[in-house]
Amino acid sequence: MYYNSLLLPDILQMIQEKDENGLHEFCEIFHPANCAEVLQSLNANDFWYVMSCSDKQSRMNAFSFLDLAKQAEFMSADQEDLAVQVSVLEGMAPDDRVDLLSRLDNDHGRQLVSQLSETEQHTVRELLSYEEDRENNAGSIMTTEFAWLPEHLTAEEAIVRLRKQAHDRETIYYIFILEEEHRLRGLISFRELLLADPEVKLTDIMQRDVVTVRVSDDREHVASEIAKYDLLAMPVVDSQNRLVGIVTHDDIIDVLQEEATEDAHRLGAVEPLEDSYLATSILTLVYKRGVWLILLLVAAAFTVNVLQRFEDEMSKHVWLFWFLPLVIASGGNTGSQSATLVIRLLTLEDMRRQETIRLMLREFMLSILLGGGLGLLTFLIARFIWMDEPEVLTVGEAPLMLKSSVVGLTVFLVVIMGSVTGALLPLVFKKLGMDPALMSNPLISALVDFFGLLVYYAVATAMLA
Amino acid sequence: MYYNSLLLPDILQMIQEKDENGLHEFCEIFHPANCAEVLQSLNANDFWYVMSCSDKQSRMNAFSFLDLAKQAEFMSADQEDLAVQVSVLEGMAPDDRVDLLSRLDNDHGRQLVSQLSETEQHTVRELLSYEEDRENNAGSIMTTEFAWLPEHLTAEEAIVRLRKQAHDRETIYYIFILEEEHRLRGLISFRELLLADPEVKLTDIMQRDVVTVRVSDDREHVASEIAKYDLLAMPVVDSQNRLVGIVTHDDIIDVLQEEATEDAHRLGAVEPLEDSYLATSILTLVYKRGVWLILLLVAAAFTVNVLQRFEDEMSKHVWLFWFLPLVIASGGNTGSQSATLVIRLLTLEDMRRQETIRLMLREFMLSILLGGGLGLLTFLIARFIWMDEPEVLTVGEAPLMLKSSVVGLTVFLVVIMGSVTGALLPLVFKKLGMDPALMSNPLISALVDFFGLLVYYAVATAMLA
Repeated sequence: MYYNSLLLPDILQMIQEKDENGLHEFCEIFHPANCAEVLQSLNANDFWYVMSCSDKQSRMNAFSFLDLAKQAEFMSADQEDLAVQVSVLEGMAPDDRVDLLSRLDNDHGRQLVSQLSETEQHTVRELLSYEEDRENNAGSIMTTEFAWLPEHLTAEEAIVRLRKQAHDRETIYYIFILEEEHRLRGLISFRELLLADPEVKLTDIMQRDVVTVRVSDDREHVASEIAKYDLLAMPVVDSQNRLVGIVTHDDIIDVLQEEATEDAHRLGAVEPLEDSYLATSILTLVYKRGVWLILLLVAAAFTVNVLQRFEDEMSKHVWLFWFLPLVIASGGNTGSQSATLVIRLLTLEDMRRQETIRLMLREFMLSILLGGGLGLLTFLIARFIWMDEPEVLTVGEAPLMLKSSVVGLTVFLVVIMGSVTGALLPLVFKKLGMDPALMSNPLISALVDFFGLLVYYAVATAMLA
Repeated sequence: MYYNSLLLPDILQMIQEKDENGLHEFCEIFHPANCAEVLQSLNANDFWYVMSCSDKQSRMNAFSFLDLAKQAEFMSADQEDLAVQVSVLEGMAPDDRVDLLSRLDNDHGRQLVSQLSETEQHTVRELLSYEEDRENNAGSIMTTEFAWLPEHLTAEEAIVRLRKQAHDRETIYYIFILEEEHRLRGLISFRELLLADPEVKLTDIMQRDVVTVRVSDDREHVASEIAKYDLLAMPVVDSQNRLVGIVTHDDIIDVLQEEATEDAHRLGAVEPLEDSYLATSILTLVYKRGVWLILLLVAAAFTVNVLQRFEDEMSKHVWLFWFLPLVIASGGNTGSQSATLVIRLLTLEDMRRQETIRLMLREFMLSILLGGGLGLLTFLIARFIWMDEPEVLTVGEAPLMLKSSVVGLTVFLVVIMGSVTGALLPLVFKKLGMDPALMSNPLISALVDFFGLLVYYAVATAMLA
């Protein structure tokens, strides 16, 4: 369903013919997400012309479905008629508006903010202050437009009041019961309200054991709590337990997708991108990928050093070189597996000390089994490779059986080392308060390559002595 | 917040003392998610004893928050008093119940199903039939308990009817308007209903352009549509546009987490696990990891063959060996990056032909820049390593400048080759209708290792000839 290629020509024609009714109708009929998909291909002037033709509600909806980079591009374009831009800005959900404004830190942005109402300027400043504390916290994804009621109301009165709140709240399906100074007392879902006796007081039917998060909590924590408790929206409180906002299910879905992308990029040794891969400039990509590639290249340079020292042994037994890529790959592969499994586990769950110990023991047992299997397979591969070779020993030449055993045993040990390293390093990073996902697969491989060479050297010198 | 370690001793004591009131209260007071966290550590007999002490609602809630493996363990335990197990099974959401029953394919499972009401047995069979079609489709995560109304009602009549439906529907916040034979006509949100004039007919206020998915659509597609349109629930229709179920926001959050785990595991060359890493048996893990390790080892065995042929050149210039791990790592790292970026992009977006071409061109330009930088750096590293060596040439010895150039140029070419391979292969897999995530980082590395050696060989023979 590519609305873009289907409808874009029509839109362009309507713009050229200044067909205001046609453009108005277009924004009315289509789902705002589809509308946005088409309009994003326009230039800023055409875009704002279409916006000025549509009514306020459709205009706002369509704009809210553009991605952030596009929103910023359009909003930062100077327009003669500032009113349309301001009306869109006014209509946005406060959390989205702040995300946008933090990308518009120029004169035009300040000019737009100054046109907002006093209350809205206040909300902007408040949300911006939460965001500045730390990036990616609950404050940066919450909205301040939640439905709330005082506790002394009856169910019937509550419904009457909610009818009035309904049009400008992000959701009315969770109603928060607040006492003085906005302190959170309880929560009622709209469904409970509907099922309740109209005469009953809210205080008698509200849930008192409400799950909350703090403004400063990491947004990944918010996501995992919403997932755990199956919530529609998560209340966000400040240090005095005052309700300052809510994070809704649709924002959490976006967070989960963004975090999954970020984690995948980290695993592949790419600094997480802010925008989509295709929307990121080549120079930014050179930086985001280059940083890690340089680090990894420098790490790999140490293997040159190891191999230089290894030279005497190697030149006596050139066949040791044949198996070099195989030996280090088997360590790197097992290390990648362990790191991936442990990093993902740490992302989803908090682990207690005893679980961590159990994990490392399991990892060790597992690596012995995997190492045993792969070591044996390597031994057989080596036997196969030398199958046609006559067993004639020249001076200093090792017997085929011994040669195959050297590589087999090395793979066995390297797999164990790789697996344990891969599992241990993310745990250590976590313990040190760093993101375990910084341990990317290539970084694990680089470390395991280095140690793998040392193991290979040790086994070879010991067995061939 | 480890409810488990805090409360478990109390629960065990209450069970021993047969303190039925205490246990009843425990299930009442705590959030069912926390309740489940504690109860999962009990054995099946104790668990069902606690369940028999609590009322039907808390019992059902707590059970629904156990993870699937635990639910299956408890439910498959033979209990004298079948009634408690049946009551829990009856109370479950139909989609969760089917997931559970598909794990209970034994006599005890069949016995439990036979105790359900005729209607519920029918729902089970219906949902099971969708699931059997294909795993991980919309049918496997949808629930059949949605709120629906005929279109001739007024807004006021609708609210009265919804009050009656409210207690057993998964959500009443989206109301589906159906005509004959359950064909989907439109959608009204509860909020719209509340804001509407009580006398207005549903047909005049409902949204007619409703986004739907098919029963057979992949659950990842459902997730991305819900994310795109910011929906609370996605209607699922069959091939005749009859509404057969809905997928709710909380199920989608679970899907997103599971899919992110699956993709992460695939990237790390682990066959996706069904349960959590810690809950999976060692033997299953040996299989899920071993399959890929064996495949990768066999792929690596081909490098042995390449190096054997490379031997003459190598033994003349032993220093070529020193840089072997560095050369193949630089290809593998760039390949991992490109594969990760492209795979994640393909997971999130459908790509058109012209975008694919643009992507490959960008990737190629990017790889020239990255390759140039890394090649230069490698050249400098080589110069540094040979810094102390006097430039005295013995017969057949290549000058230092030439040696450094060989490794630098190889890295330049290998990075380009790695980057293009890493980006191209997932695209090819996608084109062939396979999951692009099958191209794990280690598999890309294995391929790039092999081709990297060939490049190294070609460059070395050409320049040192």
